[in-house]
Amino acid sequence: MKTRARSETSRGEPIPSGATVLEVAAVAGVSPSTVSRILNGTARVSEEKRQAVERAIEELNFKPNLLAQSLKRGNSMTVGVLTQAVDSPFFNESLKGIEDGLAGTGYAPLIVSGHWNAKEEAERVGLLMARRVDGIIILTGHMTDEDIILFSHHVPIVATGHVFEAAERASAIRLNNEMGGYMATHHLLELGHRTIAHIAGIADHPDAVERLAGYRRALDEAGIPFDPDLVVQGDFRESGGVVGIAQLLERSRLFTAIFAANDQTAYGARLALYRKGIRVPEDVSLIGFDDLPASVYTTPPLTTVRQPVYEIGRMAARVLLDLIAGRPGSLQLPQLELVIRETTMRLR
Amino acid sequence: MKTRARSETSRGEPIPSGATVLEVAAVAGVSPSTVSRILNGTARVSEEKRQAVERAIEELNFKPNLLAQSLKRGNSMTVGVLTQAVDSPFFNESLKGIEDGLAGTGYAPLIVSGHWNAKEEAERVGLLMARRVDGIIILTGHMTDEDIILFSHHVPIVATGHVFEAAERASAIRLNNEMGGYMATHHLLELGHRTIAHIAGIADHPDAVERLAGYRRALDEAGIPFDPDLVVQGDFRESGGVVGIAQLLERSRLFTAIFAANDQTAYGARLALYRKGIRVPEDVSLIGFDDLPASVYTTPPLTTVRQPVYEIGRMAARVLLDLIAGRPGSLQLPQLELVIRETTMRLR
Repeated sequence: MKTRARSETSRGEPIPSGATVLEVAAVAGVSPSTVSRILNGTARVSEEKRQAVERAIEELNFKPNLLAQSLKRGNSMTVGVLTQAVDSPFFNESLKGIEDGLAGTGYAPLIVSGHWNAKEEAERVGLLMARRVDGIIILTGHMTDEDIILFSHHVPIVATGHVFEAAERASAIRLNNEMGGYMATHHLLELGHRTIAHIAGIADHPDAVERLAGYRRALDEAGIPFDPDLVVQGDFRESGGVVGIAQLLERSRLFTAIFAANDQTAYGARLALYRKGIRVPEDVSLIGFDDLPASVYTTPPLTTVRQPVYEIGRMAARVLLDLIAGRPGSLQLPQLELVIRETTMRLR
Repeated sequence: MKTRARSETSRGEPIPSGATVLEVAAVAGVSPSTVSRILNGTARVSEEKRQAVERAIEELNFKPNLLAQSLKRGNSMTVGVLTQAVDSPFFNESLKGIEDGLAGTGYAPLIVSGHWNAKEEAERVGLLMARRVDGIIILTGHMTDEDIILFSHHVPIVATGHVFEAAERASAIRLNNEMGGYMATHHLLELGHRTIAHIAGIADHPDAVERLAGYRRALDEAGIPFDPDLVVQGDFRESGGVVGIAQLLERSRLFTAIFAANDQTAYGARLALYRKGIRVPEDVSLIGFDDLPASVYTTPPLTTVRQPVYEIGRMAARVLLDLIAGRPGSLQLPQLELVIRETTMRLR
């Protein structure tokens, strides 16, 4: 069993140590929130309670840390995070990056989700603002750039999957998805494939549109005419991959390789091919997009274009801390990367 | 592409409709938090701003809804959720259940994570309390039952994976893991297997200990002596499944079936078997535990014991709402269920 030392985060960074507010509260016989209120100077509590808390602080050698001091200065030391779906492995890699990006800073994330619904997203952001978060990270979604800029007049915001110009208190982080689609297709072309199918993402989703554009550019460069019969609509989920393969096989158009718009689509495609007795990679090469943690464990492990999802989360946290501190958020975009595993092979 | 109507949650329940606080704020030319403060009666704002907000409310036909009314009464209408790891597919199914359990109630979840570290967990719960959440759901973790009961003196708490007696403002939800281990092993025995390996979970984890106990009880009942050489240590993660298979194969003990302590362990085991050219289920049957969403899409799809993780989250939300309302939380535990897919077959 692998356990972590108590004083480290999951990636090994130190977290503030010493007695906790809980322990102080338990010893003083008051609620933890009473201790917090006394520490941040907003308490209206009885003199008796105050003395009990002060005795407990002394007894336990409790050091009001960065957090308590910042609370005194009026910061909430919390960062709001708007994700889209708490059950999405894609977003949760970013959340992990955000958590690690905040580790050791005294800031803690509060996570809400918007379900790809612009109105719900805005309401959730409003909820975070009502909770006085010091800044907000928005993970993609359907809010307009204008809405986000509007919100940023009141609280610093970093938004991923958006492309607006950096404003005074808003930064956008977005990868080059067209390049990613190109890289995936180019890899298949280099292996000698000429009939390459594509299971696309959600129809109007910018990432999906760009990945398809990259696929077309790579074909163009190789002098291969675009064949619309080799492209089917997916939905960025496993079920879309299953349906996509069924549609491709119905069309009786030969193909020797598939570029799936994301890893989840590739998982579904893999299962549909397995059901038909079509081997991967011996009969058909398959490449995904994202490099989700599970892609290391598919059989065989999935070749894919790695999105630095974790790093994006980490970077979003760092940029937001810059914005909160009144510094311009400095961005150095992480790059996409081809990860060659075992679902692609040279055309025989 | 499947899209959802704007006025529904992901599982089809209505959410409050009408103009949003954001829209009121935009029209009034003030911040959304100013609107919130005016709505919940705690604002110290200029008369000018107050009038602008009131005009905007009228103009937009904005109806202060359940949320605003409750905020006025001093409720924060937020529920804190302590998860352990934001990148765990297991916990995220519960989070989804919690979100859906709260949908339509006006309550929104705020999610923090504790990383299986009792001290960090307590600090995060303290953070939630400082944010004045109306109740807290704790998803397993390493805090003691005593700590949780202590916290519940200040805020209603529902804890999963714990077994304490229900207190006035605390409820525990836990499944019968021993029975689950028994069900998995019994299924393999019914298929004629007699040499059944077990890749266990984290050594001192109560769920892991109970699943192993269930495995032993099923063997006992079938009159098969327990063979410690057929049990290896895993860690509830894919990597533990890979290592577990390597260890089992080194021991040169024959086995025809494997009970993996959870689905992630089974994914790792599946890959390790694939690497050795050992077919599933033709050469070795494999059963997991959890029924994660991804288990439908492994090749072949995984036979497993379904934990109603989503339902547990949903139930935790409902019980917490009862506790917040001052009613006793009524529990009807969802049951474990054997899900037979394609990784297990009759011994030939």
